[in-house]
Amino acid sequence: MDRIEGLTLPVAISARHVHLTDASVETLFGVGHQLTERNPLSQPGQFACEETVTVVGPKRRLERVRVLGPTRSRDQVEISRTDEFALGVDAPVRRSGDVAGSPGVRLVGPAGELTLAEGLICAWRHIHMTPADAERYGVSDGEMVEVAIDSDDRDLIFGDVLVRVSSKYRLEMHIDTDEGNAANFDADSEAMLPEVGTAMLRR
Amino acid sequence: MDRIEGLTLPVAISARHVHLTDASVETLFGVGHQLTERNPLSQPGQFACEETVTVVGPKRRLERVRVLGPTRSRDQVEISRTDEFALGVDAPVRRSGDVAGSPGVRLVGPAGELTLAEGLICAWRHIHMTPADAERYGVSDGEMVEVAIDSDDRDLIFGDVLVRVSSKYRLEMHIDTDEGNAANFDADSEAMLPEVGTAMLRR
Repeated sequence: MDRIEGLTLPVAISARHVHLTDASVETLFGVGHQLTERNPLSQPGQFACEETVTVVGPKRRLERVRVLGPTRSRDQVEISRTDEFALGVDAPVRRSGDVAGSPGVRLVGPAGELTLAEGLICAWRHIHMTPADAERYGVSDGEMVEVAIDSDDRDLIFGDVLVRVSSKYRLEMHIDTDEGNAANFDADSEAMLPEVGTAMLRR
Repeated sequence: MDRIEGLTLPVAISARHVHLTDASVETLFGVGHQLTERNPLSQPGQFACEETVTVVGPKRRLERVRVLGPTRSRDQVEISRTDEFALGVDAPVRRSGDVAGSPGVRLVGPAGELTLAEGLICAWRHIHMTPADAERYGVSDGEMVEVAIDSDDRDLIFGDVLVRVSSKYRLEMHIDTDEGNAANFDADSEAMLPEVGTAMLRR
């Protein structure tokens, strides 16, 4: 690919994970149980927990799926399309929180199990940014943008990248493991949001 | 993404698979064994076999990995980056046949097992085409091109797509499961090679 003019972005690759309600934490880990922080995540206030669950599909199960904290008002399980084929389910590509009509799934913890009526999604690729970042990049909340990845052997441009703007966020693009792998994304790779009016690729 | 002007391409998603030498077939499946065709593949003369092997990595193993025929002069195991993390290996992104210096791996069959000294790769995305196709698309053998995927929710443009031209080929782009998943590629998706001089994306 030709060199693209634009602004670089930090990128994080999200592995499969689970968000739980307080009630689901008690069902899976025991009455009165509270999530234990293992390490902070890049988004302020978010953390990976010591707790993991097993996600059970009709075909196979995924063991040791990390729980993220803090607890939320709705359960949500975020997996890759590769995980969907392993589990034997077809989950929609959705933005976080938009779980209406998504498939249910069974979760197994050390103290119990539960079957979600819905909540299984494949995360829509997105960029977290502050209002100041949005101004600098020339984008707004809810906008879909393209992001170019300059990597080793697998350059690509992601379309359909959702911009999410909040003063609570820290600038970072989130893609799942399939997306990271398709771009061969690693520490030496670079993500770039092109400047307005720039054509990204030519032949 | 805006509509892109160009020529459409058929796409096939390659799951993990193994190419074997005659000697490896005998080691894994028994002396005198010959591969059994299960179904033909799109490339003329190529076929999926009834035979499968287990690919064993330092971390985990992949069961029932399909053998493709006919036999070749060198063993080659093609896996996705997701598979690499499962196996616990780091294989290079390589074009088929370019296995020098790639990692070895252990294969287990019903009659025996063997450890390859090299041959484990992640396939470089590519397009098979005839000389007549190459002329029509305005590309040549060995060239790297970009291909735009118009899909449901996950539009993207693959860079670093290798053009492979031979009168023995049939027109088809090959991507692996991670790449297919990152584009949410399915029967309703479309792949397009833009016409020369066309800018693919703008903001």
